[in-house]
Amino acid sequence: MTTPSTEATENVRLPLRPELEGLEPYGAPQLDVPVRLNVNENPYPPSEAVVADIAAAVVEAAHGLNRYPDRDFGTLRAELAEYLRVESGVALGPDQIWAANGSNEVMQHLLQAFGGTGRAVLSFAPTYSMYPEYARDTLTAWIAGRREEDFSLDPGYAVAQIAAHRPAVILLASPNNPTGTALPLSTIEAICEAAATTGPAGADGGPTASVVVVDEAYGEFRREGTPTALDLLDRFPHLAVSRTMSKAFGMAGLRLGYLAATPALVDKLRVVRLPYHLSAVTQAAALAALRHRGELMGQVASLRAERDELVTWLRGHGTQVADSDANFVLFGVFEDRHAVWNGLLERGVLIREVGPAGWLRVSVGTPQETAAFKAALEEVLGW
Amino acid sequence: MTTPSTEATENVRLPLRPELEGLEPYGAPQLDVPVRLNVNENPYPPSEAVVADIAAAVVEAAHGLNRYPDRDFGTLRAELAEYLRVESGVALGPDQIWAANGSNEVMQHLLQAFGGTGRAVLSFAPTYSMYPEYARDTLTAWIAGRREEDFSLDPGYAVAQIAAHRPAVILLASPNNPTGTALPLSTIEAICEAAATTGPAGADGGPTASVVVVDEAYGEFRREGTPTALDLLDRFPHLAVSRTMSKAFGMAGLRLGYLAATPALVDKLRVVRLPYHLSAVTQAAALAALRHRGELMGQVASLRAERDELVTWLRGHGTQVADSDANFVLFGVFEDRHAVWNGLLERGVLIREVGPAGWLRVSVGTPQETAAFKAALEEVLGW
Repeated sequence: MTTPSTEATENVRLPLRPELEGLEPYGAPQLDVPVRLNVNENPYPPSEAVVADIAAAVVEAAHGLNRYPDRDFGTLRAELAEYLRVESGVALGPDQIWAANGSNEVMQHLLQAFGGTGRAVLSFAPTYSMYPEYARDTLTAWIAGRREEDFSLDPGYAVAQIAAHRPAVILLASPNNPTGTALPLSTIEAICEAAATTGPAGADGGPTASVVVVDEAYGEFRREGTPTALDLLDRFPHLAVSRTMSKAFGMAGLRLGYLAATPALVDKLRVVRLPYHLSAVTQAAALAALRHRGELMGQVASLRAERDELVTWLRGHGTQVADSDANFVLFGVFEDRHAVWNGLLERGVLIREVGPAGWLRVSVGTPQETAAFKAALEEVLGW
Repeated sequence: MTTPSTEATENVRLPLRPELEGLEPYGAPQLDVPVRLNVNENPYPPSEAVVADIAAAVVEAAHGLNRYPDRDFGTLRAELAEYLRVESGVALGPDQIWAANGSNEVMQHLLQAFGGTGRAVLSFAPTYSMYPEYARDTLTAWIAGRREEDFSLDPGYAVAQIAAHRPAVILLASPNNPTGTALPLSTIEAICEAAATTGPAGADGGPTASVVVVDEAYGEFRREGTPTALDLLDRFPHLAVSRTMSKAFGMAGLRLGYLAATPALVDKLRVVRLPYHLSAVTQAAALAALRHRGELMGQVASLRAERDELVTWLRGHGTQVADSDANFVLFGVFEDRHAVWNGLLERGVLIREVGPAGWLRVSVGTPQETAAFKAALEEVLGW
């Protein structure tokens, strides 16, 4: 390590892809504050019983860590199918389930299989800010249609956009992030029907479908009577519904996202996944957490109640609030939202400055955290 | 789930990318046989002490699993740097380290940042069979130059190929898989010098470098006197050296690959990585394993001795054997290698049918496993 750099290599420039030049890595600020309501985490840490079961499962897995993990994670797929059956009443086989390190890797697999150069992914903004990055990093064109003033999606407009752009993939967040808006089943149905022949031309020039991905990362927080797109799976072989253990399950640190679709669609993802992408430790810990689904899902009910109460409170102060089926609330509209965000931060409450101009997003925390947020907001806004 | 499929959706075809049509997922057969010497795993499971420390670390991490993990895994990067310092004598800062779920994800990050449409990755065959898949799944053109008869790489030829193809990335496995061949430092030096201005034109039309990636997945098994490309890092800002905890560390099930490079190069990978790609559990378990590096690395010495003995034994029987700096041995040449492979399998020994025609690859196992392999091979070949 003593050879001096030669002149030739001192001026070396890396061949970064031009579209990445000057970009910063994605990510909300990770600040150390007392009340963190900025990234829609579940505020409840796992109980001692859950921790103990994860530990026992990891010990078992650790004894065989010198070996590669089960590449097709059959047991985990079966248990995720069983969980969805209990949660949503939709019966699915293990071969209808796919999983990866976070639902962002699931999305990457979808775009690697169906997107790429010369193809487009269509979504409707405002929506999850990572979607354009998934498109960028898989070299898929990104097309953002619009949502209505109230963040709903007009089915006629959506269908027209699909016909006009012929996207390989349509990405629908429901409940949507950062707005909390769930899509009615009739809208997803209309989109799936329209999308059956709107994909890029197949190798033989024949029609293909646009793959319709409904991102239900926050699905478990939906209000009574709000449906899940899982109900439509048996009708549409080009539909995929993604979920995650990060939110309702309170396992953001575990990185386990998954989707349900037809076996044929899942099979395509197996081709583009990196071999052994799910570690033996991840598989073991996820299986352990799934065994405690009763306990972990119990918190969902109280978070939903807490959210509805927060919406009512904000509206009671004359604030505009988007209807929310998620574990967060989008509220506004502020002339200087950064000042409000900053005022909260100064009072130890971190929320997120995201979404359309003037709006702010706050995650639903514990009752104590919500109380701290309310008190801080009252001070900042002089209520 | 009772609505019958409509005719329109019965004929739906998925818009799979044409180049993926008909492909099967990558992967060696996962067969349940007594002696598995097919995927270059470390045959030694972690000790009870290692397992206990991993369990303790995971318990601590599990208490906070409702929160997202440290996106930039600073502690893990520092400990990986410290490990490389001890293993190779090369001092590196944490900002020179990058890690992901297996070195295959590290490679994917490299190709997402520097490869892609209109760009090429150059390697020299026979080499690791996943490389073309990394290229395919990042839409990077794959160019395979050749190695010599003895699997070495001719530096003059390599430099000429680089000048001819102007690849964005050059991928050099050393020790190479499946041949076991390490590259002399002088070859890597010549390639790095040639590659300083051979990349695709920059945004301003100016020259960029080809990124030179030396894949040292099997680096720790190198024979006495074989160097590591880490020695060249301070001279070449377009050099990246990748390693993994899968092989020498015996942690294939954990999925932890990493690389060392300049901070500027590492920063580019941060832009294309999926946020929170390394779970809190993976980070905790890897840190725990790293604390036991003395014990885990102790096995490397015996595996190297076992390998050298196996090479000598095979050569003693008049078999051709490639020089190996890895934990596997490529031997041949058989007129019907499949018959040999199958004969071994019938005797409970699974090796790998891979590499140039007529050759077979066997991983170095425990002394008992090696003995079983030898006995089976003697029977199959009538020695």
